[in-house]
Amino acid sequence: MRCKNKVMPSLFFYPKTVAIIGATADPTKFGNALTKNILKNKNLQNEIFLISRSSKEICGSKCYRFIHEVPNDIDLAIVLVPASVVDLVVDQCIKKSVKRIIIITAGFGEIDDLGKKVESEIAKKCNAAGIRVMGPNCVGIQNLDIGLNASFIQTFPRGNISMISQSGSISCASFYKMSPLFLGCSKFASIGNQVDVSFNEILTFFKEDKNTKIIILYIEAVTDGRALFNVIKEITPIKPIIILKGGKSRTGMKAASSHTGSIATNYKILKAAFQQAGAIICESFSDYVTAIKTLRFLPTPKGKRIAILTNSGGTAVLFSDYVEKFGFQLANFSEGFKEKIFPYLNPLAKRINPLDMIAGSGKTQYYEITKAMLEDPDIDIVVACVVIPPFLEMKRDEHFKGIIQAWNDTERIKTLIPLIIFGNNFKELNLIAEKEKICIFETPQEASFAIKLLIERKDLLERKNISNIKN
Amino acid sequence: MRCKNKVMPSLFFYPKTVAIIGATADPTKFGNALTKNILKNKNLQNEIFLISRSSKEICGSKCYRFIHEVPNDIDLAIVLVPASVVDLVVDQCIKKSVKRIIIITAGFGEIDDLGKKVESEIAKKCNAAGIRVMGPNCVGIQNLDIGLNASFIQTFPRGNISMISQSGSISCASFYKMSPLFLGCSKFASIGNQVDVSFNEILTFFKEDKNTKIIILYIEAVTDGRALFNVIKEITPIKPIIILKGGKSRTGMKAASSHTGSIATNYKILKAAFQQAGAIICESFSDYVTAIKTLRFLPTPKGKRIAILTNSGGTAVLFSDYVEKFGFQLANFSEGFKEKIFPYLNPLAKRINPLDMIAGSGKTQYYEITKAMLEDPDIDIVVACVVIPPFLEMKRDEHFKGIIQAWNDTERIKTLIPLIIFGNNFKELNLIAEKEKICIFETPQEASFAIKLLIERKDLLERKNISNIKN
Repeated sequence: MRCKNKVMPSLFFYPKTVAIIGATADPTKFGNALTKNILKNKNLQNEIFLISRSSKEICGSKCYRFIHEVPNDIDLAIVLVPASVVDLVVDQCIKKSVKRIIIITAGFGEIDDLGKKVESEIAKKCNAAGIRVMGPNCVGIQNLDIGLNASFIQTFPRGNISMISQSGSISCASFYKMSPLFLGCSKFASIGNQVDVSFNEILTFFKEDKNTKIIILYIEAVTDGRALFNVIKEITPIKPIIILKGGKSRTGMKAASSHTGSIATNYKILKAAFQQAGAIICESFSDYVTAIKTLRFLPTPKGKRIAILTNSGGTAVLFSDYVEKFGFQLANFSEGFKEKIFPYLNPLAKRINPLDMIAGSGKTQYYEITKAMLEDPDIDIVVACVVIPPFLEMKRDEHFKGIIQAWNDTERIKTLIPLIIFGNNFKELNLIAEKEKICIFETPQEASFAIKLLIERKDLLERKNISNIKN
Repeated sequence: MRCKNKVMPSLFFYPKTVAIIGATADPTKFGNALTKNILKNKNLQNEIFLISRSSKEICGSKCYRFIHEVPNDIDLAIVLVPASVVDLVVDQCIKKSVKRIIIITAGFGEIDDLGKKVESEIAKKCNAAGIRVMGPNCVGIQNLDIGLNASFIQTFPRGNISMISQSGSISCASFYKMSPLFLGCSKFASIGNQVDVSFNEILTFFKEDKNTKIIILYIEAVTDGRALFNVIKEITPIKPIIILKGGKSRTGMKAASSHTGSIATNYKILKAAFQQAGAIICESFSDYVTAIKTLRFLPTPKGKRIAILTNSGGTAVLFSDYVEKFGFQLANFSEGFKEKIFPYLNPLAKRINPLDMIAGSGKTQYYEITKAMLEDPDIDIVVACVVIPPFLEMKRDEHFKGIIQAWNDTERIKTLIPLIIFGNNFKELNLIAEKEKICIFETPQEASFAIKLLIERKDLLERKNISNIKN
């Protein structure tokens, strides 16, 4: 017998047959939203069966009144009926010998103790019948690799990021923010009250999943801390895991208990454990998005020595304040390096780190000096900072183009942070970023958080003696 | 004789005659950028004289070779000649009896001790001749109220925010970010190495300036801390002052000394003093932009009791964590209030604060419940949070429209924070925000910082016994 944990989640993500129980033609119901999402993909490989009490046909697909009327075996049943009849429907699923159940319906453990008891009994009888349960109180799953959106939220763009979340809306928001950064999803699971299937098992599945390059988690509560710690520790040397934790404070925990019926774990202890296991912990939603794009686009540095070049003295000053805050190490410029960059600098520019090239610097200066830094053996991380100049007839994208060319010409081996202050105001830059597969950091704070986590990742991989440090 | 401090800066911002010394037709020089900026406004009230050694005419305007050839008296001379001849040009300005000088040219105190000595001697002889000096090493000034852009950076959009900055590029970046938020500038001064004119005097001028509603400062060094403290303390009960400080750490101070020749003041002491004087201190560029929009668009609350409504349980959890971090007070819902909102809530929604209205809530729910909160005597600040739902055929802007309508129907008396998670992904929302003169907050962190500073402002105004608490 194969290890249950390892094979368990695959049927959730790769079901041959799916039954939607609670499908409806009523567009104000989640049973309609999910049905439409799943049927939208005309090339879907999975066979879909709709179970509906109200409709005979939805979007051209026939509806059955009961699951036992479906002639085929069912790998995955998705339940969206009202909470009061979930128990009954689960009994029918057990009788039909479905293999996996996702309960989307809310109104269980997040409401009160009775709800907790009911959901726990449902899980118990399913498990006894060999059926694993995801949810209740969740939005469903997606597997973009096979075009399956078995959730009632938007279909995410396809990519290499896989997510497990205790909040459907935070998943929506995450991908709203990721889409314009050209970041997409491989697999997504919303586990809600996690009455049975929890983070650990899906993580184990993601570990082996070849399309999953980065794993992101929104966690409110941990059901088995020790197991979660172990699986995170196993995965992080292979794939980065980024964690956003909700319910860090007493007030937050109280809110979490109303949201997913969670009794949130002490954050300090959890954070220390997750960090020890090599995960990237984000204190805010913004950091979370920064971490995702950083790990997706940038190579892990080989050392900690940072060099910064800029056309903005003020920005060099603001960035320098983070150097101390995060304990960064500024690279020392060698005499050879200073000679090399001399021809490209304004005579007023001091050859010190941070290197303020002064406002008049354009594409050539940015290209040559970024390249010199990327080639220098005493520098590991290059922060190329620009405030787009509105003067001297400079092109708004010329600095960024110079920076990218320097990175390309040095084969993108070193870590390069393009810090374009408030670059999101410049559409042409975003288009270049898309084409060149590079990301823009928008504030000294954001760039610093990116560097901090990349150095943490470098340290982890070094501890694990992993020589091929690629994300 | 009128107080020098009070009348001093007005001639910088309202000069009748301006001489640009170092004007040039060469588009690679700042003397060209500034000349073009100033001449761009065809309705300019100020009379402009160009002094150039290289050109006879620029943009159709005649050039003089020397300032003494100009027939008129000169209120303001703007100097852009190379550093080596600045001293000579200043002597000519003194001889001509110009009233004010801005030295844009860099290469003085920010370079070395000799540069410090030279700039200080220039200031001394100007002052002896009754001339005040701004700079050196700065980008110039702007007074949008009269259409004057006497700087080499972009012309800012017109508005009610006035800025004093020790970094030209940080000013550029600030207004790049403010423009899409429909925030504009009244007056702007870049004071560079502040060899003579410093923050204090311009602040005093801004205090009386009727078009200046909010003052923003980027500070690297303070030349007269006591005077600055006093003037900030005088102004803050009347107009908010928002401060971003560069050079908070040793590394940052070192960078500041290369940037503006500053010996940065101990940050902890400065911060404590500024806060005591009632200024809003921002630790990051993002907070700085948040503070500006918050104070521009939102009324100061009358109390501290916060209520939050949301369609996203996860977001309620994340926001709740900030409640504890910043020591916020969540409002208690009275029985009357609970009864009032009952008809609009999903039966599964618990009537607790934060109020998770559950994913299916649309415009009506948002309108009715936001309005009920805005009308409730036990609630001072309403956080209306939305993750735009991608389901149930909801319109993407309906929640926001419901929120705005509730605010309008209650005459915008209470503080309303529209927290639309990553709302910047939705263009239609930004258009509504522009039309309705309202701003969107994008993360729980941003919303929390806004609330924190509004409560600080409320406390300040209460301490000062200012009853009419309007920004």
